[in-house]
Amino acid sequence: MSRTIIESDANPRMKRWRKLAKEARAVKREGATLIEGIHLAESALENPKIAVDAVLLSEKTATDEALDLAEALMREKNARVYVLADRLYDELAPVEHGVGIMCEMPVPKTDALDFGSADVLYLDGIQDAGNAGTLIRTAVAAGFRTIAASPGTAQLWAPKVLRAGMGAHFGARIFEGVTPEAFRGAFKGQILAADARGGENLFTAPMATDGPVAWIMGAEGPGVSDAALAVADARRLIPIEAACESLNVGAAAAVCLFETRRRRMI
Amino acid sequence: MSRTIIESDANPRMKRWRKLAKEARAVKREGATLIEGIHLAESALENPKIAVDAVLLSEKTATDEALDLAEALMREKNARVYVLADRLYDELAPVEHGVGIMCEMPVPKTDALDFGSADVLYLDGIQDAGNAGTLIRTAVAAGFRTIAASPGTAQLWAPKVLRAGMGAHFGARIFEGVTPEAFRGAFKGQILAADARGGENLFTAPMATDGPVAWIMGAEGPGVSDAALAVADARRLIPIEAACESLNVGAAAAVCLFETRRRRMI
Repeated sequence: MSRTIIESDANPRMKRWRKLAKEARAVKREGATLIEGIHLAESALENPKIAVDAVLLSEKTATDEALDLAEALMREKNARVYVLADRLYDELAPVEHGVGIMCEMPVPKTDALDFGSADVLYLDGIQDAGNAGTLIRTAVAAGFRTIAASPGTAQLWAPKVLRAGMGAHFGARIFEGVTPEAFRGAFKGQILAADARGGENLFTAPMATDGPVAWIMGAEGPGVSDAALAVADARRLIPIEAACESLNVGAAAAVCLFETRRRRMI
Repeated sequence: MSRTIIESDANPRMKRWRKLAKEARAVKREGATLIEGIHLAESALENPKIAVDAVLLSEKTATDEALDLAEALMREKNARVYVLADRLYDELAPVEHGVGIMCEMPVPKTDALDFGSADVLYLDGIQDAGNAGTLIRTAVAAGFRTIAASPGTAQLWAPKVLRAGMGAHFGARIFEGVTPEAFRGAFKGQILAADARGGENLFTAPMATDGPVAWIMGAEGPGVSDAALAVADARRLIPIEAACESLNVGAAAAVCLFETRRRRMI
């Protein structure tokens, strides 16, 4: 397989990857991102909608599995393969002791804001990358394969979010920078806000499952913003024990989204 | 308020705290742990069952809120107050830019293995500290206030687990080092294993909610161990979309535990 070796800090590609690895804004500006590890690389390989421009291998620590995958990505996706000195690779990798494969991929273009009849998860100011990725994973698993995110939410295609998403991004339609008002304008169904401060009991209140449902989840601490609450049709409260103040946003989303899924199945 | 100032790396208390901060085994051996931040310190203060032996303040960066809390802990819990040079404090703290308060507390003694009629979450080989803490938080919120953990699970009173638990530990009874066989021997109710590989649909299968229910959650990747599956009365599968391989263990637990809670409420 034809490979380019990179050993210099000052290599222009290395500079570009460093930005993509460290700056979420660079991901937006360049329209490209990095994914790390076997699982994400395999998910990208298997998905015809995902392009892979480059494969980055660590010179000494890339495993045989990583090398085979690089070969397949070169063949199937026309990816170029680069071998990086280990210290350069480690600088880019979000984890220590990885298997030595990363890919540069273009961020998929999003269509115009059209939700059709899809259920939607709306992320309202979720700044933590790990939480954002886990939320996308949970949403796709629950059948909420369209994600919309407020301008204050983390860049959803940033490497850390992709890592926590475990490949779920590739099965989702993702709209970023969507204000609550724009969301309300484009979504034709019931919008529910998960609100620890009040609202009807999630388990006993009605849910309009004959049409699309959207859930709004806010950040831990502040919760759903006033602007997002203003566009919700109703608030729902997860009935938790008094001994506990609140749920982690990932757990709360799992409970709400799967309650919608349960009602559709029953 | 009477305070002892600690400025030397070699101070014997500092050595002890360093071990508690870094080594989960030290938490077990010493029967003591460290909690960091306003929220955990307040939760400890408010809970009559939790003792606090020492308050650690950072010399320059402790906030007024932290100082007030230290005063209250000294008064209500007879805690000794230590002021640490900032570099020593930072060495112990699990987060950067904290508010400058930590507490040393004894790990609460557990009773003999007796679950009574309580619902139980059994953690089967959950090694990740963040996951373990989030699971305890979710369990307490769902009314599963008794936690049992296999010998291969993280030390549940380690500082990182406490941090992710957000105070839920203080509202829970926690039994560690419980083998699946010992758990089966002591628990008088239905034991369900959440298993992504098979089992009946969580939402449509029966659940014996007239008696206590226990959920077994396994680690991501390996899932529930054979030894734990062997003591379960049944396996349950969360019906997820084919586009997604699996749920994060925290999300899976939220769905299972709150499904039990929902059935009890309805």
